[in-house]
Amino acid sequence: MTETKPGVAAPGAIAAVLAALSFDRDGLVAAVAQQHDTGEVLMLAWMNREAVTETLTTGQVCYWSRSRQALWRKGETSGHWQRLVELRVDCDGDAVLLQVDQTGPACHTGERSCFYRAARGETLAKITT
Amino acid sequence: MTETKPGVAAPGAIAAVLAALSFDRDGLVAAVAQQHDTGEVLMLAWMNREAVTETLTTGQVCYWSRSRQALWRKGETSGHWQRLVELRVDCDGDAVLLQVDQTGPACHTGERSCFYRAARGETLAKITT
Repeated sequence: MTETKPGVAAPGAIAAVLAALSFDRDGLVAAVAQQHDTGEVLMLAWMNREAVTETLTTGQVCYWSRSRQALWRKGETSGHWQRLVELRVDCDGDAVLLQVDQTGPACHTGERSCFYRAARGETLAKITT
Repeated sequence: MTETKPGVAAPGAIAAVLAALSFDRDGLVAAVAQQHDTGEVLMLAWMNREAVTETLTTGQVCYWSRSRQALWRKGETSGHWQRLVELRVDCDGDAVLLQVDQTGPACHTGERSCFYRAARGETLAKITT
């Protein structure tokens, strides 16, 4: 065990994760971020190989921004960091689940979760959870 | 309110959800399924407009299978149905969160969740949650 702090993975684990992932034609996998203790699903974003590696190396979540076509160190401009608790890989390797500790809101709208609207009654309603 | 049972959405809500979604170049949005009461993230799959409509109309989750290029009524062959409790839409409309009641395992491997491997120690380890 060379793991030194939560969320920072050992080189062997990083290599195993990368080997298990099937990146799509754009070089991406889907990444679901979940607050580790409450279970709240916070957001869905994308990671390329570099973002996965950086996230596991630093313990701070880094995505790939499809709109900016650049690495997106979550919290770098907003201060709303995501500290990685654990990274999980799905059965076919095209998605990861990030158990995180989210500082402040995850959503750029200021909502805690990006999934703040639900089909209710006759409309898509804003929810408070 | 024309909602008649949990997970079955009224026509107005279905129209509002479809209007809020931004389908990608393949006509898809990402769909995260979460067990509604435990918070466990079960799987990530894809939905096209027809799958979203069917899911909200029937209250049983229907995805789009990218490998088979066909509607995928979850549980139709396995018996492992997902009853929809609530559908949520994210801030930019390219992902939905499905709060579901999962019958049996969600994963075709027999695991409860598709995210059953985690970066731990020097490897990608199978986890039991």
